[in-house]
Amino acid sequence: MRTLLTVARASATSSYFQQATIIRVRDAAVREAVHAASGQPYVGGDRGELLILVVDLHRNAVIRERAGAPLEPLERTYAFLQGCQDALIAGQSMVAAAESLGLGTCYLGSILGDPAGLITALGLPERTFPLLGLLVGHPAQEPQYKPRLPEQITVGIDSYPPLEEHDAELAAYDERVTEYYDLRDASRRVDSFTEQIARMVGQGRAAQAPVLDVLHRQRLCLR
Amino acid sequence: MRTLLTVARASATSSYFQQATIIRVRDAAVREAVHAASGQPYVGGDRGELLILVVDLHRNAVIRERAGAPLEPLERTYAFLQGCQDALIAGQSMVAAAESLGLGTCYLGSILGDPAGLITALGLPERTFPLLGLLVGHPAQEPQYKPRLPEQITVGIDSYPPLEEHDAELAAYDERVTEYYDLRDASRRVDSFTEQIARMVGQGRAAQAPVLDVLHRQRLCLR
Repeated sequence: MRTLLTVARASATSSYFQQATIIRVRDAAVREAVHAASGQPYVGGDRGELLILVVDLHRNAVIRERAGAPLEPLERTYAFLQGCQDALIAGQSMVAAAESLGLGTCYLGSILGDPAGLITALGLPERTFPLLGLLVGHPAQEPQYKPRLPEQITVGIDSYPPLEEHDAELAAYDERVTEYYDLRDASRRVDSFTEQIARMVGQGRAAQAPVLDVLHRQRLCLR
Repeated sequence: MRTLLTVARASATSSYFQQATIIRVRDAAVREAVHAASGQPYVGGDRGELLILVVDLHRNAVIRERAGAPLEPLERTYAFLQGCQDALIAGQSMVAAAESLGLGTCYLGSILGDPAGLITALGLPERTFPLLGLLVGHPAQEPQYKPRLPEQITVGIDSYPPLEEHDAELAAYDERVTEYYDLRDASRRVDSFTEQIARMVGQGRAAQAPVLDVLHRQRLCLR
């Protein structure tokens, strides 16, 4: 954890503004609150170290207030995106470092199932937002690599790669995904990638949480 | 580049929705357009490979449209944040891989100096957004490590770490930052960290660009 937190702090930061904060969850009651926000069973208990990656424009608001500088720039969407960049770049730096040490990691987007509850549980002030959770621990299994969309579809040269030009690749990819699920667990429902996108996007508590309302209440992304 | 693009595709993706696309800029005219959007001299010419990390909800919109599924979920802020996560996690995976290969990298937040112009130049459709640029190349110099805020200020245990409790650490950090700039270039203006935050936040073309308007025009972050 010492190494990982040092790696996080050493990561790139937009404009050198350092607009991210990490909450390391040690207390069982706080962990239970994150677990409740997430709704995912593997977030609770003591399954590895639990970190929360927080977009933090509050710290710089305090510094600017002391200097008599206006806070309005921190309410712009660009400032929020800078904070997202800082938080996620630090997070993925930790993931690369953790994996290089033989540890396993799991991002937790599900913590946004209850953003307001999470903000209360972690004592997060105005102008902060808990963007993503991260579990780090000793892996209990070595899962098979889950196939990704082919490069023709996700990488464009000089311009956007239209999906319509890659229908054959998409169909072949759908088959690979189906095969992957079949091998992993023959007893569960098997959806191809396109079936998952059609069925699952917008489902789940985080996708239905009032994320924008909470951002606005935190005085983020106001314009 | 082959390795780096494979690393990007192999990275974690929120809910397996794979909502990021990378544009690799090879054409001189397109590069000049990115350079113009950025306004930073080091973005132009042939200073390394130039990649644009794009939040991409368009691909899944096409897939859902074909399946007769509603597009509304893709207009929620949570979906946009999932795309930001995918794009930035892929980006930082590439950075870690590039550095492990002895290459140097530079993120380009400045491409948002003209988001609408960039969208046109890269032929980006509705529901996509160019979040961040990335330069990769053979480093011409080995810059000194730029000191970061101390861990007491940026990492909290179980709750948010109030800046007010760490004024001594902040003052010591300000001194370290001033020393760093003095050593780097004695002829330039030297600002401590807090002076930079007071003076620079909200400055620059990207911080003043109509980012939220452009996001809305792209049908992102609508609710």
